[in-house]
Amino acid sequence: MTTVLKGKDILHVKDIKLEQINMIMETAARFEQVLDSGGRLNNMAGKLLAMLFYEPSTHTRMSFESAMLRLGGQVLSVPDARASSSAVKGETLYDTGKMIDGYADIAVIRHMQEGSARELADGSSIPVINGGDGSGQHPTQALLDIYTIQKERTRLNNLTVTLAGDLKNGRTVHSLSWLLGKYGPRFYFVSPEELRMPPEITKALVDDGIEVIETPDLSTAAAKSDVLYMTRIQRERFTDCEAYERLKDTYLINNDLIRKAKSGITLMHPLPRLNEIAREVDDYEGAAYFRQAANGGPIRMAVLALLTGNE
Amino acid sequence: MTTVLKGKDILHVKDIKLEQINMIMETAARFEQVLDSGGRLNNMAGKLLAMLFYEPSTHTRMSFESAMLRLGGQVLSVPDARASSSAVKGETLYDTGKMIDGYADIAVIRHMQEGSARELADGSSIPVINGGDGSGQHPTQALLDIYTIQKERTRLNNLTVTLAGDLKNGRTVHSLSWLLGKYGPRFYFVSPEELRMPPEITKALVDDGIEVIETPDLSTAAAKSDVLYMTRIQRERFTDCEAYERLKDTYLINNDLIRKAKSGITLMHPLPRLNEIAREVDDYEGAAYFRQAANGGPIRMAVLALLTGNE
Amino acid sequence: MTTVLKGKDILHVKDIKLEQINMIMETAARFEQVLDSGGRLNNMAGKLLAMLFYEPSTHTRMSFESAMLRLGGQVLSVPDARASSSAVKGETLYDTGKMIDGYADIAVIRHMQEGSARELADGSSIPVINGGDGSGQHPTQALLDIYTIQKERTRLNNLTVTLAGDLKNGRTVHSLSWLLGKYGPRFYFVSPEELRMPPEITKALVDDGIEVIETPDLSTAAAKSDVLYMTRIQRERFTDCEAYERLKDTYLINNDLIRKAKSGITLMHPLPRLNEIAREVDDYEGAAYFRQAANGGPIRMAVLALLTGNE
Repeated sequence: MTTVLKGKDILHVKDIKLEQINMIMETAARFEQVLDSGGRLNNMAGKLLAMLFYEPSTHTRMSFESAMLRLGGQVLSVPDARASSSAVKGETLYDTGKMIDGYADIAVIRHMQEGSARELADGSSIPVINGGDGSGQHPTQALLDIYTIQKERTRLNNLTVTLAGDLKNGRTVHSLSWLLGKYGPRFYFVSPEELRMPPEITKALVDDGIEVIETPDLSTAAAKSDVLYMTRIQRERFTDCEAYERLKDTYLINNDLIRKAKSGITLMHPLPRLNEIAREVDDYEGAAYFRQAANGGPIRMAVLALLTGNE
Repeated sequence: MTTVLKGKDILHVKDIKLEQINMIMETAARFEQVLDSGGRLNNMAGKLLAMLFYEPSTHTRMSFESAMLRLGGQVLSVPDARASSSAVKGETLYDTGKMIDGYADIAVIRHMQEGSARELADGSSIPVINGGDGSGQHPTQALLDIYTIQKERTRLNNLTVTLAGDLKNGRTVHSLSWLLGKYGPRFYFVSPEELRMPPEITKALVDDGIEVIETPDLSTAAAKSDVLYMTRIQRERFTDCEAYERLKDTYLINNDLIRKAKSGITLMHPLPRLNEIAREVDDYEGAAYFRQAANGGPIRMAVLALLTGNE
Repeated sequence: MTTVLKGKDILHVKDIKLEQINMIMETAARFEQVLDSGGRLNNMAGKLLAMLFYEPSTHTRMSFESAMLRLGGQVLSVPDARASSSAVKGETLYDTGKMIDGYADIAVIRHMQEGSARELADGSSIPVINGGDGSGQHPTQALLDIYTIQKERTRLNNLTVTLAGDLKNGRTVHSLSWLLGKYGPRFYFVSPEELRMPPEITKALVDDGIEVIETPDLSTAAAKSDVLYMTRIQRERFTDCEAYERLKDTYLINNDLIRKAKSGITLMHPLPRLNEIAREVDDYEGAAYFRQAANGGPIRMAVLALLTGNE
């Protein structure tokens, strides 16, 4: 059933079944292999991707556009949809969805409001991909994270994974913890008290029989982990300035931390980084964050091709 | 004489002769048929379209870009030409026209000032299409409107057509009334007193022997009409708030109005809509406004191909 | 050694050796010939160009994008990179360079800060072209200027060239004087006292044995010159308003000045022009400024193809 994703939307990571995730990863690997061996793909020739970005996000936009172009397709790009005349005139996303049916074969929307991707999809008959809606969902980020772990560790099962930084507000770590939860991990959730993982997420994992250790101590967690997934931690999130000053160095990944960590630990980050990872770490072979970003290419190629039935 | 449009500009709807309109509609229908049957077009392979948008207009821009890409061509998009360095530095549109000769094979300009498309065309030797200049012209909108009526009603002659809403300021209804006037229609012009069709337009039609009935009453007009073309009506156009409050419900198309209208009436709107058409009407089979928007695709494909001699 | 530029960056005009300049001009001429004879190029099929414009520049952007598309390649365009989420979040250009490795095969950056192109190139493993960094460098402008002189005069050696206008702040005249200096020119540097060529540039030329005559008098210089390269001169550059009022007419190229100039003089300007060149001059056959702008196409095609090894 290779066409099981054809015609579907991808709005929320929980919409995607485990077998579909595997299909996406297999398709991504196949595409990657063709490109790596100098081949070209033409699966989406004559097809158009509409990029409706109501919130700027250069990396997500470039990654999707690059993916579509590398499949031989074409792109209609609206990098600043918020300022467009129809949005200003008060067009609903439902009506925008009706309109894009006439322009394109598949659409990606990024928007500041949760639920906006759903509203567009309700109006549209072409597949819609949620490219990030506010503090809500960004399912292709979770997919590329999983794909990266698979590639870096050669397996997804039975890994010890540390998620660190701002676990309260980071949508990537929420989606990733849910998705990785399907593969029987052991989790360390490393954050300051103010920025702990939302209790309902932790509870759901524990209820599923997954071991979760919450701690503010990054070094101890790193010493036990196969994967360390770091996120940005922002000063303005703290009510207590002293707490920030005390913690900020603890949450810096540098060569000193790598020495204390489990040998061969894989370092990931959704990027852009600020000061969470020192540049000296870039030379460490387990530093996977730029490879992780590049993995967005094949994963998004796979999603675009599968949803339109051009895999 | 299939090449009669080759090398020409389309700046004003009145520049286009009736036989050229027919040629554009025939070409559009031919392109549409190829795409609908799953075929691909490659007429504009290796050709570049420059999109110079000094005023944002996502739908017009996406429609033209989609059209060019579906013809196998490529697009140079400047969605915010106003903020570009050359415009800021004070380059004239005449000089911009000279410059784009070096970049592209055909250009579309959208600008807030009437006459701007003409100035660009004066400098440029490639075909220039006016994609809307202020309260002036937007000829491809008029063409897709005519094309929609032809498709929805299977004829253009001897139709009773209601144009409703803001008839004073709406450039689309001005162009459309002029263009439809060539096909022997009967017109209802439905608007509040403040927003009546400019008298010179009405007079020119009447002088041509066309029956024009002006009324503020939408239901009566709809009961007699084959086509109802609605436009946005804005509160700020009214000097008299009470008049707006009184009229706003009268100018709402909902299922109740459809029941009072002539059976099978075709509903059109240049979009985006605000509250002029209730969403419940979307399911009515004569609701043609989204099909109308989609007709912009083949019409613009036809115009791009004919002006460059690639039909 | 046709691949000598493959994999290189072009960050500064001084990075390019004379033999490489010749290779670029020969490749440009070859590409131009193919297009002029109605042929198509497909050298960059399947390749992606990332356009990172942190400062708006429509003409430079359109020229590069047009070049890439005419080579059969595709473009990832970020016309307002400054407002992008990653720049706002504080991503370094080094990290942006790491990221674009995953998206594209070659990149052009335009930025307001000197040295920014170098920082991007330090992070990136794909070729990076400096599309203008502040008051620093814009090497493809210098290359197309040289190419224009070669085409208009059929030679580069032993020409008398006037550079006129704002010689103090204009990066194009700095690069051009350095580049032309390699071909044994005689220079007139024509500017008001306030806007003279920086003395270190003049000195370096004189030290190389090149004759340089500095004067505020445009007519006298034009009477002796094969090429007159005019640049914009801005009122706000003057501390002395009277000096501006006195000079502004002297620095206007009109038909009267052409009559006083050497017969057949070639007129150049980096464009956009304001009032430096009257529109009446456009009909003069030596008015090369719009041809000069169009020469940006083949020159940028050559650079894109050579740096990626697709010439």
